[in-house]
Amino acid sequence: MSTPYEAPLPMMLAAIEVAERAAASTGSGEAPGELVEAVLESAGRFAREVLSPLNRAGDKEGSQLTAAGVATPTGFPEAYRRFCADGWPSIAAPRAFGGQQLPMAIAAAATEVWAGANLSFAMCPEAAAGAVEALRLHASDPLRERYLPPLVSGEWTAAMALTEPQAGSDLSTLRTLAEPATETSGVPGSGGSGGGAPGGAPGGGPGGLGTPWRLRGRKIFISWGDHDLTPNIVHLVLARTPNAPQGLKGISLFLVPKQLPGPSGDPLRNDLEAVSLEHKMGIRASPTCVMAYGPHEGALGWLVGPLNGGVECLFSMMNQMRLGVGLHSTGLAERALQLALSYARERRQGRDAAGAQRPIIEHADVRRMLLTMRALTHGARGLAYTAAAALDAARRAEDEAARARAERRLALLTPIVKACCSDIAIEVASLGVQVHGGTGYVDDSEISQVYRDARIGPIFEGTNYIQAHDLLARKVLRDGGAALGTWLDEMTQTAEQARGNAALAPLAAGLITQCARLRAAAAQLARSNASDRELVGAVAYPFLQWLGVTAAAWQHALAASDSIARGPIDRLARVRLDDARLYAAHILPRAEAHAAAVAHGADLLTSAEL
Amino acid sequence: MSTPYEAPLPMMLAAIEVAERAAASTGSGEAPGELVEAVLESAGRFAREVLSPLNRAGDKEGSQLTAAGVATPTGFPEAYRRFCADGWPSIAAPRAFGGQQLPMAIAAAATEVWAGANLSFAMCPEAAAGAVEALRLHASDPLRERYLPPLVSGEWTAAMALTEPQAGSDLSTLRTLAEPATETSGVPGSGGSGGGAPGGAPGGGPGGLGTPWRLRGRKIFISWGDHDLTPNIVHLVLARTPNAPQGLKGISLFLVPKQLPGPSGDPLRNDLEAVSLEHKMGIRASPTCVMAYGPHEGALGWLVGPLNGGVECLFSMMNQMRLGVGLHSTGLAERALQLALSYARERRQGRDAAGAQRPIIEHADVRRMLLTMRALTHGARGLAYTAAAALDAARRAEDEAARARAERRLALLTPIVKACCSDIAIEVASLGVQVHGGTGYVDDSEISQVYRDARIGPIFEGTNYIQAHDLLARKVLRDGGAALGTWLDEMTQTAEQARGNAALAPLAAGLITQCARLRAAAAQLARSNASDRELVGAVAYPFLQWLGVTAAAWQHALAASDSIARGPIDRLARVRLDDARLYAAHILPRAEAHAAAVAHGADLLTSAEL
Repeated sequence: MSTPYEAPLPMMLAAIEVAERAAASTGSGEAPGELVEAVLESAGRFAREVLSPLNRAGDKEGSQLTAAGVATPTGFPEAYRRFCADGWPSIAAPRAFGGQQLPMAIAAAATEVWAGANLSFAMCPEAAAGAVEALRLHASDPLRERYLPPLVSGEWTAAMALTEPQAGSDLSTLRTLAEPATETSGVPGSGGSGGGAPGGAPGGGPGGLGTPWRLRGRKIFISWGDHDLTPNIVHLVLARTPNAPQGLKGISLFLVPKQLPGPSGDPLRNDLEAVSLEHKMGIRASPTCVMAYGPHEGALGWLVGPLNGGVECLFSMMNQMRLGVGLHSTGLAERALQLALSYARERRQGRDAAGAQRPIIEHADVRRMLLTMRALTHGARGLAYTAAAALDAARRAEDEAARARAERRLALLTPIVKACCSDIAIEVASLGVQVHGGTGYVDDSEISQVYRDARIGPIFEGTNYIQAHDLLARKVLRDGGAALGTWLDEMTQTAEQARGNAALAPLAAGLITQCARLRAAAAQLARSNASDRELVGAVAYPFLQWLGVTAAAWQHALAASDSIARGPIDRLARVRLDDARLYAAHILPRAEAHAAAVAHGADLLTSAEL
Repeated sequence: MSTPYEAPLPMMLAAIEVAERAAASTGSGEAPGELVEAVLESAGRFAREVLSPLNRAGDKEGSQLTAAGVATPTGFPEAYRRFCADGWPSIAAPRAFGGQQLPMAIAAAATEVWAGANLSFAMCPEAAAGAVEALRLHASDPLRERYLPPLVSGEWTAAMALTEPQAGSDLSTLRTLAEPATETSGVPGSGGSGGGAPGGAPGGGPGGLGTPWRLRGRKIFISWGDHDLTPNIVHLVLARTPNAPQGLKGISLFLVPKQLPGPSGDPLRNDLEAVSLEHKMGIRASPTCVMAYGPHEGALGWLVGPLNGGVECLFSMMNQMRLGVGLHSTGLAERALQLALSYARERRQGRDAAGAQRPIIEHADVRRMLLTMRALTHGARGLAYTAAAALDAARRAEDEAARARAERRLALLTPIVKACCSDIAIEVASLGVQVHGGTGYVDDSEISQVYRDARIGPIFEGTNYIQAHDLLARKVLRDGGAALGTWLDEMTQTAEQARGNAALAPLAAGLITQCARLRAAAAQLARSNASDRELVGAVAYPFLQWLGVTAAAWQHALAASDSIARGPIDRLARVRLDDARLYAAHILPRAEAHAAAVAHGADLLTSAEL
């Protein structure tokens, strides 16, 4: 039984509307409703017809390292060519560089769709979108002019090269070294600073890119670090320069292209290569490379942003990259739901009162699993789209104050979206496996792939603990709980408005309770933090889970209230009301365990014998 | 970094003691402490030296179907030969058939050890142990005499053939057909009923096995259905006979050996074969076969137990098979804990106050994960060993009343052990992956295999929902909550005794609360059950989770109280007290969400639109 991916258009369109209201974003309000619908319908068709059919085969075949570099699975190069021909890489990119500059909330929905159909594939354009953002904000004009248009069009892709074997969550120890090419490279024909170009003419001549550097080092876990979809791949590489300060303050960001522009305009191969591929639990079609930069004469690269400002440059695109993980995870959760629903409708076990075989979707426990999957998935989508809409508002709102408000909300939402959506994807995929029974454990069933693919979410782009620490230390405690307080006020207000409806009363009551308790807990943490240096580390993760399970309840309250306000009670409205009821009864009570863990602080963890 | 499996001897020995007291079993009390320790030390050595080194390679290589049948991964046949030479298959088997008849609690610990080192391997002797139990209880004397000794010694193995494509959780629809060989087989040379033997002389002559049957049908998901470890494999096959009643009451159990005893004593090949192997998410070294029984002239088999009594025969060994899943899952959780601890001690990220790099085990959130893993694992072990001790007591206690009491406790414990331990293994493995970060996602790291291997636990030997339904419908509600009430009394008493110790007071208080709430909930369910036919199905799973999280708290209370009573506070005592504190603060509060789901009943699930 093959179940092709179907973009859940009505749910997505409704979620975009709610998200833009929640984020006070004018976002896709700029784009007429028919356009939004047309874009997503077209994305859904591409996902169903092109990406979804490659998903299982891509998992089985995987990417392979050959003498000529990385070969992606059969069908991937052609699918990517069509992806670019249809203009998908550019939908959210700035018009100045050839993009369509559609609102992020729409691009977010498209991102979810690609991942739902084929996460391995979806990771490739996502890295390029992150690079576009980094270069747009920080690169010199010549770099932007040369590299942004082909990245925006999809003609070239990008890769983020951060991790080294000894430097994962803690980048301060990274060792990749960048030296000015003109002083240290020893390459014949190197010109002076900013002048003649080493190894060809990349730095000099008209349209010179600035002083080139030579990079040497090894990076691991580089997604799409090499492949055969495009001739050029733009690597953004974190490296240390000679005599740079120790730690995070001595790290710079470099643009290191796979192909250098040669003297006659012909591309020259830069000195970088994929030396091995990881064999992974999932996302097997996505090549995860060990990259050697400068194994021979040194890889040529150009500084992006200020010297020693690499970490900040990276952070400025982090919101988008982490939102990307949340959207991908939402796509996986949606896919797991689709597969489980389809299986549960077909599979017959047990009999009804009249003795006829029942499809298992009629069994109460299967319904419990499916409804739990759905409420979790819809909550994840609501949060992720709201973050996307906040990103829109932070960039585009008319007045400064509105942009700043949106930025504060985005700062809170981003780590929650990254961590909670990725945790949710695992839970939903696991429930999806369970609905399938033994069938869900065999490779032939796509749900088993979704389960394996989902497990990377809590790990990459900053582990979920890194998100939790970012949330509690930087976003909640640093301003004394002010931004959180504003958000909790807003959630409480949503709940107050919703509680009049009997169907929503339990959800609203739970939401009001949790908001009040979160506020008190944050205040208590702010008081204890100074005297307890392990506190934030100890409670960050349960705090994030607690706020996340509450924020998803807020999303359900918004969504269901929206349907009630519109009337009449159509299928969308019934789904939202059922989601809200299920969430209040089965999921929001998890807040209790998270709250208890927060209340118990650090002592238990630090004093225990291990 | 390779971390060989180490059996956690002190924890296991202490857990056996507590379990036997909790189950009022004289079990291994029969076996002197030094013997128990020697057996487990020896098991641990075998696991470390023989099984653990084959685990990663077995996963990579997998079992393969060849023209000659299934070939297991390199090293498996030799390891199995040594396993038998050391006498491991027989440790729990009855003396009457060559077994050592050690208490189940000891055998349980050994079973945990095999699975912790190599689950794929461990599944093979586990199936044989189940078959031994079924044959011991239900087979005719000739069948027992011929088949039990080689199964007990490990010379032959066994496979359970239940599932068919259309018949999974619901066996009532199975189609495999068994017909009396003498009437219908058409095999030349078939003798009369109970006399001359078809296809050779299997049924006749001295030591005749009784009337043979011809079986025809296809079974799926047959673990170790074919392999190259032993020449013969004893299949226990559920099949329908001509004119049998419809449904579960028309199913019989047959012994269908791969090799038939030929006329001159030489083995003859029976008409059964593995026609394909499943490619699975995990347990890849364990061959999961699609078996064809009787693709040609019909497979010869012999009835085990009464005609149409197959399902009951199966149920009588279900306790042991399901306990086996719980023990295997405990082994996986223990293994995940070992791997995560080892990694967290080696891996350095971040710096301490003095600027030195810290092993990540010093980070509070990593400690949170590790301590959560440990408390869950130790709780799982406590429950599983207590069930094993109850099995001992149910079989061996001196007086009838004690045996009946143990049987009732075992009936409650079995579904909880199967479901909760398998759910716990997944959670613990997932935390283990998270502790490893990106390293945990690549195939080279054993933790990624543990995560994949663990996912089968909630599916096979009756899905976890089947367990939950068995618990609530048959074990709790059928006797009006009497057996549950007795157990809750006992747990409450344990808590009352523990609450005097300050370190245990929070755990004790939580346990007392949950026992009281569970009692009330069970009473409410008993009242509502008659009028709400969807109720049991809807709340069974959260009810099981609720009782399970509570029962594990009871285990921690027992374990910590045991250490306090003994004094002095050594490492074992500190670990148990830390487990108890962590469990009370971080895990037992999950009861809230399970209780809420139970309280909300069925309406929400049955009325929701899907």
